[in-house]
Amino acid sequence: MTAELTLAELGELGVLARLRPFCTGAIGDDAILQQLPADQALVVTTDVLVDGVHFSDRTAPPHAVGWRAAAANLSDLAAMGAQPLGITVAAALPATTRWAWLEAVYQGMADCLTRYGGEILGGDLAQSPVCSLAITALGVVTPAAAIYRHTAQPGWAVVTTGVHGAARAGLALLLDELEADEAYRQAWIAAHQYPQPRLDAIARLPSLETPIAGMDSSDGLANAVTQLAQASCVGVELMRSRLPIPPGLVETVGPSQAETWTLYGGEDFELVLCLPAAPAADLVNQLGGQSAVIGQTTAAEGVWLVDAQGQHQPLQEKADFQHF
Amino acid sequence: MTAELTLAELGELGVLARLRPFCTGAIGDDAILQQLPADQALVVTTDVLVDGVHFSDRTAPPHAVGWRAAAANLSDLAAMGAQPLGITVAAALPATTRWAWLEAVYQGMADCLTRYGGEILGGDLAQSPVCSLAITALGVVTPAAAIYRHTAQPGWAVVTTGVHGAARAGLALLLDELEADEAYRQAWIAAHQYPQPRLDAIARLPSLETPIAGMDSSDGLANAVTQLAQASCVGVELMRSRLPIPPGLVETVGPSQAETWTLYGGEDFELVLCLPAAPAADLVNQLGGQSAVIGQTTAAEGVWLVDAQGQHQPLQEKADFQHF
Repeated sequence: MTAELTLAELGELGVLARLRPFCTGAIGDDAILQQLPADQALVVTTDVLVDGVHFSDRTAPPHAVGWRAAAANLSDLAAMGAQPLGITVAAALPATTRWAWLEAVYQGMADCLTRYGGEILGGDLAQSPVCSLAITALGVVTPAAAIYRHTAQPGWAVVTTGVHGAARAGLALLLDELEADEAYRQAWIAAHQYPQPRLDAIARLPSLETPIAGMDSSDGLANAVTQLAQASCVGVELMRSRLPIPPGLVETVGPSQAETWTLYGGEDFELVLCLPAAPAADLVNQLGGQSAVIGQTTAAEGVWLVDAQGQHQPLQEKADFQHF
Repeated sequence: MTAELTLAELGELGVLARLRPFCTGAIGDDAILQQLPADQALVVTTDVLVDGVHFSDRTAPPHAVGWRAAAANLSDLAAMGAQPLGITVAAALPATTRWAWLEAVYQGMADCLTRYGGEILGGDLAQSPVCSLAITALGVVTPAAAIYRHTAQPGWAVVTTGVHGAARAGLALLLDELEADEAYRQAWIAAHQYPQPRLDAIARLPSLETPIAGMDSSDGLANAVTQLAQASCVGVELMRSRLPIPPGLVETVGPSQAETWTLYGGEDFELVLCLPAAPAADLVNQLGGQSAVIGQTTAAEGVWLVDAQGQHQPLQEKADFQHF
């Protein structure tokens, strides 16, 4: 049973031979060569994930660990308006890691790339007491279509491509900190384990003549809105009544917890976009689903949650965003 | 004294603010955008280095850790015939890491890139019980000038750009397993701590009309020669009298140990190139220094060390090349 063997038992050459089918790059040279389409710029993003910090056997099977790792990087490409070419994977692994675990991680990455585009271009393996995965994603974008954080103007609409807080609820379910109806349970666990990078939304953006600013919401909706506001030197008013709370969450955890998870939960990997009101409404119509206009940018700086009575409450800067 | 503070004491935002001066990429977006020169292909390579496995305080100060990490990746670019654009750095670090250590690592990477070209384009930080650095290097090459391992033909010369075994001797000195005259001592420690990727040799290669195969010798000279032979389906005869042994090594460790370290020591980061004899001789003249023709490719497969009497001894496949 190869699957039960450890990496040490297979040996490096044995592991590399088994990983080869996952990799489309020219394995066997010191680096891979990739032709870029003419008139496209390269987009590069890197993430490192550590066992016990960013993933664990308790909350994600290895296939989901691989999917999430790839999806998080593809989401960063989507946030720049780019389409994926592929990823490189640098895995530091204990010698006692079972081949079945690593194979499932690679299968998860490969399945995510098959779904959204791009390939596993290459990588590196090293032995380490702690498992970590460093992924670099490469994409391409027409330079004029690249999306940045600093280009929002006052008076624009703030759009999200979907609900927020579902991944946080899924994590709570997996940690047995929450109970929920089966229909919600499945959706929220899927939101945590199998996030969907919103590359589909990039293809539906308005024409290049429409200015746009944006980023993804990997560190939470409140964080994304705050980053966009600060980078663009504008303010943001989010309408409390329009917060993109997942269906069923208020009923399950109450309105206060639901609002907190929606604003601060993180890892929903949706896009948060700022653009003028008319194309924003068109975009939401195009995207459908749970995309929505949730607020507007303002000339006065500051990021506020505004209730039906017009009361302004500042969004919190959450200390636990910090990874150290 | 900021330098004595730990990453946990500085906080993630504090650490990122202090790393910003090292990074030339557009920090603040989800990814970096990079324009490529027209008619150039992208070359990508990834390495992951783990504390206690690939580096340690005992054998390298943090500035050298950073230099070596960058140099190893630039060497992979050189092995493909590419020139560097830059690197991304994914660092997984204990919260107790001192800022002074991380700053010196980044300074080492930045100094290596200043010397050889390219920039720190971006990266990611994560907390981990074990320090690891995953570096992805990006370069460009005119596709017709790319160097591969599989293109060698029988009857070509095998060239190295420099001596081999010096880095291994330097490691032995740093581990107090060896004593040597001061002149050798400095050179060998420098070979271990501050390897020089041979990007300079790429600029001196013969014109595109001359076919060439090659790779770098990061895993040792014998490994490089064996990989080239296997990928190209040729044999190699290395002349024992032409082995690129560092000056002073035979006198210091004896002829047998010197030959072993030259063939199997590893981490010298020279280039091993196969090309027809006449341009090979020209290249060695151009490169000077300790570059040399050390053998030839043959139609019969197998990798041999040939002595002055014509006796053929097979090169060993060393089991400890395997990282698991």
